[in-house]
Amino acid sequence: MPEQPELTVQGWGPGAPPAAPGQGATDPGAVLPRAARRHLTEQLGWTPRATPPVAVDDIRLAPSRLPDDVRTELAALLGEEHVRTDRASRLRRAGGKSYLDLLRRRGGDASDAPDAVAWPAGTGETAALLALCAERGVVVVPFGGGTSVVGGLSGVDPDDRPSLAVDLSRMASVADVDVASSLVTAGAGVRGPALEAALAGRGLTLGHLPQSWEFATVGGYAATRSAGQASTGVGRFDDLVAGLTLATPSGVLELSSPPASAAGPDLLGLALGSEGTLGVITEVRLRVRPLPQATAYEGWSFRTWAEGLAGLQRLARHDLLPDVVRLSDPDETRANLLSATGTGARLLRGALRARGRGGGCLLVVGWEGLAPLVRARRDAAVPVLREHGAVRLGRQVGESWRRHRYAAPYLRDRLLDAGLLVETLETAATWTALPTVYDAVRRALCESLGAPGKQPLVMSHVSHGYATGASLYVTVLADRDDDLPLQQWLTAKRAATDALLAAGGTLTHHHAVGADHRPWLEREVGPLGVEVLRAVKQRLDPRGVCNPGVLLPD
Amino acid sequence: MPEQPELTVQGWGPGAPPAAPGQGATDPGAVLPRAARRHLTEQLGWTPRATPPVAVDDIRLAPSRLPDDVRTELAALLGEEHVRTDRASRLRRAGGKSYLDLLRRRGGDASDAPDAVAWPAGTGETAALLALCAERGVVVVPFGGGTSVVGGLSGVDPDDRPSLAVDLSRMASVADVDVASSLVTAGAGVRGPALEAALAGRGLTLGHLPQSWEFATVGGYAATRSAGQASTGVGRFDDLVAGLTLATPSGVLELSSPPASAAGPDLLGLALGSEGTLGVITEVRLRVRPLPQATAYEGWSFRTWAEGLAGLQRLARHDLLPDVVRLSDPDETRANLLSATGTGARLLRGALRARGRGGGCLLVVGWEGLAPLVRARRDAAVPVLREHGAVRLGRQVGESWRRHRYAAPYLRDRLLDAGLLVETLETAATWTALPTVYDAVRRALCESLGAPGKQPLVMSHVSHGYATGASLYVTVLADRDDDLPLQQWLTAKRAATDALLAAGGTLTHHHAVGADHRPWLEREVGPLGVEVLRAVKQRLDPRGVCNPGVLLPD
Repeated sequence: MPEQPELTVQGWGPGAPPAAPGQGATDPGAVLPRAARRHLTEQLGWTPRATPPVAVDDIRLAPSRLPDDVRTELAALLGEEHVRTDRASRLRRAGGKSYLDLLRRRGGDASDAPDAVAWPAGTGETAALLALCAERGVVVVPFGGGTSVVGGLSGVDPDDRPSLAVDLSRMASVADVDVASSLVTAGAGVRGPALEAALAGRGLTLGHLPQSWEFATVGGYAATRSAGQASTGVGRFDDLVAGLTLATPSGVLELSSPPASAAGPDLLGLALGSEGTLGVITEVRLRVRPLPQATAYEGWSFRTWAEGLAGLQRLARHDLLPDVVRLSDPDETRANLLSATGTGARLLRGALRARGRGGGCLLVVGWEGLAPLVRARRDAAVPVLREHGAVRLGRQVGESWRRHRYAAPYLRDRLLDAGLLVETLETAATWTALPTVYDAVRRALCESLGAPGKQPLVMSHVSHGYATGASLYVTVLADRDDDLPLQQWLTAKRAATDALLAAGGTLTHHHAVGADHRPWLEREVGPLGVEVLRAVKQRLDPRGVCNPGVLLPD
Repeated sequence: MPEQPELTVQGWGPGAPPAAPGQGATDPGAVLPRAARRHLTEQLGWTPRATPPVAVDDIRLAPSRLPDDVRTELAALLGEEHVRTDRASRLRRAGGKSYLDLLRRRGGDASDAPDAVAWPAGTGETAALLALCAERGVVVVPFGGGTSVVGGLSGVDPDDRPSLAVDLSRMASVADVDVASSLVTAGAGVRGPALEAALAGRGLTLGHLPQSWEFATVGGYAATRSAGQASTGVGRFDDLVAGLTLATPSGVLELSSPPASAAGPDLLGLALGSEGTLGVITEVRLRVRPLPQATAYEGWSFRTWAEGLAGLQRLARHDLLPDVVRLSDPDETRANLLSATGTGARLLRGALRARGRGGGCLLVVGWEGLAPLVRARRDAAVPVLREHGAVRLGRQVGESWRRHRYAAPYLRDRLLDAGLLVETLETAATWTALPTVYDAVRRALCESLGAPGKQPLVMSHVSHGYATGASLYVTVLADRDDDLPLQQWLTAKRAATDALLAAGGTLTHHHAVGADHRPWLEREVGPLGVEVLRAVKQRLDPRGVCNPGVLLPD
């Protein structure tokens, strides 16, 4: 397996390392251009300050509680070198990468670290491991890329049993490529770059490109019902899964019937989104497609958010949405203009000035596929955009977005170093409900995080369009409350979630439920819906060892 | 509610009525053109003979076993006129329209008739009815259009309890039209024609057109994971359901989160395909679309089945499949040519002759949507068809298929009258497995139904294309064994099903499981998959009153 980059223990990575603790930074806001810094200090009431994480060596980690005899049995099952309790292995698999996760790890808290890490080599070993752990009362948490931003790796077991992270990285084969049927089988631990590299050699692509693409695994995508930046065109990850293998404490479920079936309820859809609570997804059968013959990315500008939404809705109704659609609201557009440095930002500023637009709403669109269809679809969409007042900013704006599409989480580490609260949340709603959901979330966040002289910056964009509605992705920046940073965000998150659900949004469009959203699951699917999920879990995981504290409310 | 046509008790309908019993028909094969009759008598070893059904009045129906006190309670709940035990109401809701169903009814057997029929007006009444029936041990069978061809209405309750058909026809509203979000809410009892009429007034269409379209209901589509003739383009019914309401003995599940959600496993997908075994679907929220601006239907001819499949597979890989795709094998093409009368057949024969093709494989394709995209998609697909040796037969062949798209079940009644076995079965497989599945099914049917001097006619077509594979729809004609007609077909069906599963096909692509396929469900989803479904049923229907004997094996 080729060397792969790894996330850092306290942030994203492996970009520029965080400032060493104590060493400080002479200019904590220097990560941002001057104009952006001025804008943020004024609006947020933020004083740039050095708030570096504690040294990794100073992170507190309790001794492993994995019973020796269980460890011996696991070693007999997987091989001695594939069961570890060392500090580095456990720390690396402590929680995910939400703002709450990062606050804990930066503050030296790794209380959610597993007691041990195991590396099964395939479905058989995973199933045997699960049966053993169920029998011996050891909690099992699947670990793919470790990129969860909803506490998917931070569930609290009500029975406080020892826990084992099951690392998927040894299940990383790409096999059974069926070009005629556009299908490929991937081990759950395969990451995006490795999969795309393997497919490109056959002229194929999966095309699933979430922001976590460099690190996240296909097993994780399946377990969380992920969506990627091109999902409007290629479909959500759900749509790309033609089958999967789920190892559970009660046995192995093989779920696969491409291309389609009417043989009863959709069990594959039960495994997708199960977030480790029913077992471990060990393999997925994926629908792939030919590498695109042509691509066309470009930027457009709408005068207002309402006009932008109306334009996208018209495209959606007539099945004219491009494969990539990303509409930024005025706040996000302004922040893009202020904060981006280099060619991309200069281009965008220049293009807007040339068209007499100071701000407005930036739209990035991209088409991919056969050249004549890319052309025909674009030709049909352009008049609709113009009817809604959009002006074209050109290809370079689109290409610049493509180049920087995975950059945001790296920047977040630097902003956390400088005393900011930085977090995202997301939802989706029908076209009709979307404006209300947008207003409700912004209001809730501003009320919760605002104070005299302090206002959060709430930036939103639509990133996935459907015939019936669209997603809404929200980024929040605020001056961090250094005394009670966790509470500050938990309060705001609670208010925003209550607001978006009341306005008709879904609890989550693509981040999943995790530990963070589970108090609201019942509002999403109803008490009887929760009971159905419990019944399924009871059948597959009767001892409740599979990722407790995640997905299902207590 | 406008007057709607009704299926006859002993067949499809309301076409020409069956010959009156005893009256006979002077020429029992006269329903077919001479050439077709000659072809069938030679190949099948069939002697056209009058085998009319018994008179409807002579059908045997046991007295209703619904306890009087339950009837009284139901009447108190729904109103006296909405609970009936009369002969006509019960007969009309006895079973569905499979060959086995028709054999029973034509032979005077209505032992699968419900003991009573109830017409609840909405979700609340349905939920109350289910709770009452669960408490009193009365089986509940939802009845939509009554068009099941897999015994979905013919389950045998192992406890032999009284049964109640729940007719959906009073839940037939079309409401909450959200044009911007392309959504509409339909009562489960709405049929295709009524729904399309209501939508057309708003410039909208659902576009779901199974062969049962005139009679089947949207609730039935949802309960069976239906597919329609344009599903290649508009999607299967699963894809068109944005939400639904499922009344169960344990309460009501409201499942809806358009446009998309990552909030845990997909519960909506559990309700779809549940075939009445979890409760009664009372309402569906549907994704609609604008009426097409342009349509283009046309006929093409491939030299061979292999070339036809290869051509479709190439189109599928590059996302170039038309909205309607129907490729007939040589046997079906020949039968079309022989049996069709009138302008359509003359046109087809003429077009083929003009192009030097005596038979080959007929392909009907159709594109719908915005005019420039219809043009661009067609322009991109045509060279692929030609590369695989297809020649164009013109628009009139395509339009003729459209005009006759619902005709086959009417013809079946006439063929049954004349001593034939006539049945269909269907599956789907990956492009790679499809040729093997095709061969295996044909071989199994020919071996089972063949005898010295007798061969069945097995005609197949692909009717739904996907990126990863396609459906296969098989029509079988054979000389009926008048002594043991049920056994004759059960033996053949068993052989065909075993063969298609072994070759990699799915148990059913769009007819559902019903009573007929349930012995094979475990082969499709595995023993643990069946256990998961049982756990869900146990939670929602602990007394097992919801359509027992259907879907789940004993």
